[in-house]
Amino acid sequence: MANSRFEYVRGFERHDALLPLCWIVVRVDGKGFHRFADAHAFEKPNDARALRVMNDAALAVLEAFPDAVLGFGESDEYSFVLKKDTTLYGRREAKIVSVITSLFTASYVMAWPRHFGDAPLLSAPVFDGRAVAYPSDAVLRDYLAWRQADTHINNQYNTVFWALVDKGGETPAKAQAMIKGSDTAWKNETLFERFGINYAHLPAMYRKGSVVLRRTEEVVVKVDAATGQEVRRKRATPVVCHDDIIGDEFYRLHPELGIEADGKRRR
Amino acid sequence: MANSRFEYVRGFERHDALLPLCWIVVRVDGKGFHRFADAHAFEKPNDARALRVMNDAALAVLEAFPDAVLGFGESDEYSFVLKKDTTLYGRREAKIVSVITSLFTASYVMAWPRHFGDAPLLSAPVFDGRAVAYPSDAVLRDYLAWRQADTHINNQYNTVFWALVDKGGETPAKAQAMIKGSDTAWKNETLFERFGINYAHLPAMYRKGSVVLRRTEEVVVKVDAATGQEVRRKRATPVVCHDDIIGDEFYRLHPELGIEADGKRRR
Amino acid sequence: MANSRFEYVRGFERHDALLPLCWIVVRVDGKGFHRFADAHAFEKPNDARALRVMNDAALAVLEAFPDAVLGFGESDEYSFVLKKDTTLYGRREAKIVSVITSLFTASYVMAWPRHFGDAPLLSAPVFDGRAVAYPSDAVLRDYLAWRQADTHINNQYNTVFWALVDKGGETPAKAQAMIKGSDTAWKNETLFERFGINYAHLPAMYRKGSVVLRRTEEVVVKVDAATGQEVRRKRATPVVCHDDIIGDEFYRLHPELGIEADGKRRR
Amino acid sequence: MANSRFEYVRGFERHDALLPLCWIVVRVDGKGFHRFADAHAFEKPNDARALRVMNDAALAVLEAFPDAVLGFGESDEYSFVLKKDTTLYGRREAKIVSVITSLFTASYVMAWPRHFGDAPLLSAPVFDGRAVAYPSDAVLRDYLAWRQADTHINNQYNTVFWALVDKGGETPAKAQAMIKGSDTAWKNETLFERFGINYAHLPAMYRKGSVVLRRTEEVVVKVDAATGQEVRRKRATPVVCHDDIIGDEFYRLHPELGIEADGKRRR
Repeated sequence: MANSRFEYVRGFERHDALLPLCWIVVRVDGKGFHRFADAHAFEKPNDARALRVMNDAALAVLEAFPDAVLGFGESDEYSFVLKKDTTLYGRREAKIVSVITSLFTASYVMAWPRHFGDAPLLSAPVFDGRAVAYPSDAVLRDYLAWRQADTHINNQYNTVFWALVDKGGETPAKAQAMIKGSDTAWKNETLFERFGINYAHLPAMYRKGSVVLRRTEEVVVKVDAATGQEVRRKRATPVVCHDDIIGDEFYRLHPELGIEADGKRRR
Repeated sequence: MANSRFEYVRGFERHDALLPLCWIVVRVDGKGFHRFADAHAFEKPNDARALRVMNDAALAVLEAFPDAVLGFGESDEYSFVLKKDTTLYGRREAKIVSVITSLFTASYVMAWPRHFGDAPLLSAPVFDGRAVAYPSDAVLRDYLAWRQADTHINNQYNTVFWALVDKGGETPAKAQAMIKGSDTAWKNETLFERFGINYAHLPAMYRKGSVVLRRTEEVVVKVDAATGQEVRRKRATPVVCHDDIIGDEFYRLHPELGIEADGKRRR
Repeated sequence: MANSRFEYVRGFERHDALLPLCWIVVRVDGKGFHRFADAHAFEKPNDARALRVMNDAALAVLEAFPDAVLGFGESDEYSFVLKKDTTLYGRREAKIVSVITSLFTASYVMAWPRHFGDAPLLSAPVFDGRAVAYPSDAVLRDYLAWRQADTHINNQYNTVFWALVDKGGETPAKAQAMIKGSDTAWKNETLFERFGINYAHLPAMYRKGSVVLRRTEEVVVKVDAATGQEVRRKRATPVVCHDDIIGDEFYRLHPELGIEADGKRRR
Repeated sequence: MANSRFEYVRGFERHDALLPLCWIVVRVDGKGFHRFADAHAFEKPNDARALRVMNDAALAVLEAFPDAVLGFGESDEYSFVLKKDTTLYGRREAKIVSVITSLFTASYVMAWPRHFGDAPLLSAPVFDGRAVAYPSDAVLRDYLAWRQADTHINNQYNTVFWALVDKGGETPAKAQAMIKGSDTAWKNETLFERFGINYAHLPAMYRKGSVVLRRTEEVVVKVDAATGQEVRRKRATPVVCHDDIIGDEFYRLHPELGIEADGKRRR
């Protein structure tokens, strides 16, 4: 083959398999989404449509990859957990990261009109991706807790900030100065007393972020023509919820994830 | 910050900078594009619309990344050359690969209606991505030659195959058997004598693939209101061409790429 | 500093930290030890002096690195287990591997005269080294079991082979053919019936390999001059033993290693 | 084989080949050599015996590895250049680094009595090792220049420092303060005027470090018994010199190294 003289260049590719028997977390993260959000007039502090586009893209990842057992998203980022014995693409990092990021991105663009109607996409939404290997259930749970705690912290901050600016008429700089160093109690009181907002009553999607996982349901797969009897099968379908994933209960309720539920048995 | 207890999980991220002063080639490659092509009824052996979608996505990469100096595409793959002293994202592999793959994917979806009109996108186009470091101009040129030679080989094969099947009425198996082991001369003769196709007259985009690079042109940036005089600036704009990138001439004509043009001075 | 113009070359060094919270196993392995063994007339199938040189070198590693909690050696190889939360040299692979291999090598040369007396070292003993990260106690135990099972398999083979050749007068080729495909029972019977060797009575160092770990003992650190009373301290001293490290008992007896003893709770 | 159940643990080993067609530099560096030097009463600022032990160890590396074309050493470190197309150990980093470091270490211990006579080795000399890939001759030359410039800077500093302390009766702190921020001219004048030392006349081994490379010489390989005629062969023998390796001349005189001699044609 005339081509073989050049083929040695393939030898420069690196192999980069992630350590076996570790959980793999792939996180995609919006690039330049401040500008993207402004350009598309996202509502502050949360835009439900934008979050639903993210969730749709996340569901597409679970649809495509059976080994992706769980996802968690907030704002413009989403983390996916691949089960620890996955052999997807030989556990090659660049392959796993690039394919999931690409599928997420394509799905984001395709989901856009479903939630934004006629408002056109004015620029390309771009995500970076990374993969991290976690050697134990305990560390994986700490990772998930880290992201969900982050959601809470950011959302509380942003909710107060935008209330002060949009409803309270404060300048952004003033609002920032007021919040700086304040604790949770002050934030909640300010929201309630000054703006009549009960933080705990805000949508769980804003406070807790979004979780994607499979729900096993009996579905009617066909109806017997002769007898009229329904044939039902169990089918695992990716769904979105907004559960707490920091405490033990979630993992007790979802043993199919294979993640240790006893938080005391960490490390 | 309540979050800090979990933040140690960031310490599991790996750093993966590509070797300094090497050319970086990022190649994106369609996943499952056989099915994707069938689902969207791509014309065989080449679908001009599909190739133009690819080219538009490639132009978007050059628009976004000044350090991407050159791209080469064929079929469902595209390679991008980042200049060897680029410090983009600290040369971190996962970041570079995921962002370019994501931008390429988003741009592909957004470019689709421009070339396919009302024919809707039925499934998500997905690409994998990889980055390879090449230590010298000579090896980089061999990489580019490898891809363009591959374009030629594949296109000639496919052109004969589909002529035999579509116009010649052969079964795919028969067509495959006829081509197997045949040389270039036989393929060209078969095309010409049996089907009246002069291979050399087929569109360069099919025979040579597509090259994206910047063309520096004087453009009118404004017109002086008082004098009516045009103000012109040199501006480098990404364009598509179908030049030969195996021989020396291309590199002599494009010294701005910084790639050694003297093919004898290899290694 | 005149030197700074060149200092950019440091930027080409890669960082290569092993994944946190994984056990690190460093294995050193003799290079060309067949020839080395012949040149120094090692006894077959085992040379007690050579094994003791290895053990001395392994003790030096445990002396120098408190985070090396366990070692296992057979023939011309030794594995060292670094505890999973070690931060030795920032867990940098090349550093850990090279320093341990270097210390092992220097200690080997220095220990030589202690066991070989006047027989001089005729060539440099050379070891390669590698580091592997193991994410769980279960996999670490499988690693250790792998090496000790290997010791048994090799030793039984070699014991029979050399008995057939040295005492039985068989040619090496004949001996090899006889053993090939034989099971453990045949090997033990042959040893016993033809050569009067009870395999189970051979020294444990040959059958089980060598284990290095710390033993905590009370030692007299000084004697009070006035009262004549001994002042005793607990001190952990590296020692060699030949225990079974496949079953659970070893880990139950050595909880200080921090390795799960319940073999059923694997993975 | 009983062992196969555990053998999966080999799958945790990483492959870490250095980029093809790059020069590989392996540098070994003494660990804790300040203490080692004190314990063995090395002369200050340079101990010729200790440097010769280093050089002997370096010669052993060139003897063992034909692909190691050049070495440069100073103080307690040595760098080895492997030719850029070497396929030694599949270019695997850990293997290359550990074996060279191990051989260097063993050779150091074995060379000790040749230069230190009856003065015993009191502790194990330990070296760390690292490998770095350099993509071009220009960067390789900058690496070598970096190390030799470092030799000069350190040696000049140390020569003045120890003259001030040993001969000038200054305290170390005072000496340090006097040298701090001084230029080369001041250092040379101080040495000459106060201590009668002409820096340029000091041994080249101290000022320039040591270079190991192969010298091709005709050697008598046998004498024909009948005719008495000598049979001569060209043989490349590793030797030590103290040449300048910063300028172009060295590379012009040693075209066999395959390193570009024209310093202007860098990068």
